[in-house]
Amino acid sequence: MKTAKLTIGLSHLRVTLSEDFYIGPGRADLLEAIAETGSIAAAGKAMGMSYKRAWSLVQALNAGFGGPLVETSRGGSAQGGATLTPLGREVLDRYRHMQEATREAIADDVTALQQFVTSFSRIK
Amino acid sequence: MKTAKLTIGLSHLRVTLSEDFYIGPGRADLLEAIAETGSIAAAGKAMGMSYKRAWSLVQALNAGFGGPLVETSRGGSAQGGATLTPLGREVLDRYRHMQEATREAIADDVTALQQFVTSFSRIK
Repeated sequence: MKTAKLTIGLSHLRVTLSEDFYIGPGRADLLEAIAETGSIAAAGKAMGMSYKRAWSLVQALNAGFGGPLVETSRGGSAQGGATLTPLGREVLDRYRHMQEATREAIADDVTALQQFVTSFSRIK
Repeated sequence: MKTAKLTIGLSHLRVTLSEDFYIGPGRADLLEAIAETGSIAAAGKAMGMSYKRAWSLVQALNAGFGGPLVETSRGGSAQGGATLTPLGREVLDRYRHMQEATREAIADDVTALQQFVTSFSRIK
């Protein structure tokens, strides 16, 4: 999942929201994977991270926003079902929107910079 | 220099320009520090990195763009004066422009997300 994509242009957008809290691509991708898989464990696995790591990222998000972004069903095991709360969905949507808006905003500069890379590479 | 600034909003913008090459805030800050100090060593020092590390970042930039972004005067020591080439200046200017364009493009989402952080923090 992580290794497959080569994107020319924006590859990392981190947005700081308070002194010790930010949202970045890893946290957004994890939220999306939780929404898709319905499980923190499966989402973590899909991103090549341990359950412990995925869980601690969810905790960091919940703590940073001061409310739950992910809701876990407490019916069975601690690694049971998980869904995004409305807050989690809005955070994810807004992050994706920021990525899109950034890609548009930087497109001309990316093209110009890429032309340097390409033309010089051709001369080499 | 690195520790002083807390910026709410955009804090890390990395732009991939080829399979194995990107420009990000560290590389841009180093170019700017070289322009300001006229020296790779002084620029590295201002950013809390070794001369070796600063030099290798300059090398990575030159290799990635396929031409020199930094010109060193070979008159005296290997750690002598350094200036940006026109290519280096354009890369720096375009990176700064991408940062500004991004800040504008994400401003509304940042405000909305920050309001979650702030309002929930107040309730806690």
